[in-house]
Amino acid sequence: MKLIRFGEEGKEGPGILDNQGRRWDCSSFGEDWNEAFFREDGLERLISWLKIHQNSLPEIPEDLRLGPPVARPSKIICVGLNYRKHAEEAGMAVPEVPILFMKASTALCGPDDPIYLPKNSQQTDWEVELAFVVGKRAKYVSKENAYQYIAGYCLHNDVSERDFQLRQGGQWVKGKSADHFAPLGPFLATKEEIPDPHALNLWLKVNDKMLQNSSTSDLIFDIPTLLSYISQFMTLLPGDIVSTGTPSGVGMGLPEPQYLKVGDRVTLGIEGLGSSCQQVILDPEA
Amino acid sequence: MKLIRFGEEGKEGPGILDNQGRRWDCSSFGEDWNEAFFREDGLERLISWLKIHQNSLPEIPEDLRLGPPVARPSKIICVGLNYRKHAEEAGMAVPEVPILFMKASTALCGPDDPIYLPKNSQQTDWEVELAFVVGKRAKYVSKENAYQYIAGYCLHNDVSERDFQLRQGGQWVKGKSADHFAPLGPFLATKEEIPDPHALNLWLKVNDKMLQNSSTSDLIFDIPTLLSYISQFMTLLPGDIVSTGTPSGVGMGLPEPQYLKVGDRVTLGIEGLGSSCQQVILDPEA
Repeated sequence: MKLIRFGEEGKEGPGILDNQGRRWDCSSFGEDWNEAFFREDGLERLISWLKIHQNSLPEIPEDLRLGPPVARPSKIICVGLNYRKHAEEAGMAVPEVPILFMKASTALCGPDDPIYLPKNSQQTDWEVELAFVVGKRAKYVSKENAYQYIAGYCLHNDVSERDFQLRQGGQWVKGKSADHFAPLGPFLATKEEIPDPHALNLWLKVNDKMLQNSSTSDLIFDIPTLLSYISQFMTLLPGDIVSTGTPSGVGMGLPEPQYLKVGDRVTLGIEGLGSSCQQVILDPEA
Repeated sequence: MKLIRFGEEGKEGPGILDNQGRRWDCSSFGEDWNEAFFREDGLERLISWLKIHQNSLPEIPEDLRLGPPVARPSKIICVGLNYRKHAEEAGMAVPEVPILFMKASTALCGPDDPIYLPKNSQQTDWEVELAFVVGKRAKYVSKENAYQYIAGYCLHNDVSERDFQLRQGGQWVKGKSADHFAPLGPFLATKEEIPDPHALNLWLKVNDKMLQNSSTSDLIFDIPTLLSYISQFMTLLPGDIVSTGTPSGVGMGLPEPQYLKVGDRVTLGIEGLGSSCQQVILDPEA
């Protein structure tokens, strides 16, 4: 199953995407795709409900905006330097344990929303990433049991301001958390849609030039390792998002570093998880 | 006004504390002290409502647990090394700009709840801090306007696992986010209760031994500077918590470093913001 959310920013309704690419409005299910939905076995209840109601759902008009496929999570955890070549291009050591940082949930936006260049930004950069969504409360989970705690997967652009991230006092959260720095989606693919999340091509282009092109088979720490590891340090809640890191090819790592400017167009995709496209604009509030 | 929340963990109801130290149940106001409450001018509405209803509120039994005075915020931002002597004891440079990190909101607990030692913790440490609570959406706010965005202040123990924080891959969030690592309260004092938040004594004892004893007058970056600075990097939402840093005297900084062990009792307080007391126990889920 593929979950989507659609409509105006901050007022999205719940829907699904079918295998023919048509989008159906599930507002009459009466729940958003949020923490409570996942916690209370929403995916199973939705499947049962769809057996009765699928043929009577309103179709979502094609031009309606998609929002992030998960409503505001309690947290977004990101993993740093989780592809070997990306650690090299960033000039950092390959980590011995996963590097974790948080991204403010206020950064979330829809897959095709514009990327906002924050005020005073000179070095806004791209990062295509495979994200997973937590399906139930996870604490001190073993690697062996980790998949039981995963609801599904999404495409994520972990947009990053390098100057804010690396040269403003040392903790990365500052460069990761601006509004519209987390385009998520187009959809959440539930776990059974992605039999092997470690064999997916992922790519990103800026203005049609391919700059990232790799495979999740190159992840240093795989998904069960990450979920288990994170759950030793904090409790993951249903609906929480974990973004697993980006492969090489970010702007900071190019022979001549290159950053996003107004008018650029970023497109990205992951096999089985669709693609997204963001125009770069100045933050309208800047 | 002093806001409290009371009752079982995760099911707290809203209340107020009066100047005689009596606690009153505001459940009939029909709202929790959360993001929506602050966003929709809840403080002003509550004051009007209390004029009519204050004398008919049920009193909260004295033995009822207090929860955190703010319901789960979208984020908790903490400031690192914001007292000169603490930076010195931590062996780190006095920062030129505020150091920011996030603490998972799942770490929040009541002021007198136990501190849980996480599984494999050897170095769980204390940090008395003045926290402020955001009153309305703040983005690109100037220092001059910063107070308009503040709802009030709370006492916070920014409990920290030093090995997780400093020796597990470099980003601090890992050592700050375990369950019960953010005892908050006893109450939120609204802004007008604290005419000068930069002249408050703050202290912390472990087993009746005074270990931290300082004043918020020693803050390197003051509250308007912090709110303004953070709002350049991310949008603060109503109800968000910003913890302004700890003075010297943490366990890591003692001539012979000392950390919390099962059975220890931590008490802390800030002038005008009450005191809290936490017993140290092993995480019941560990």
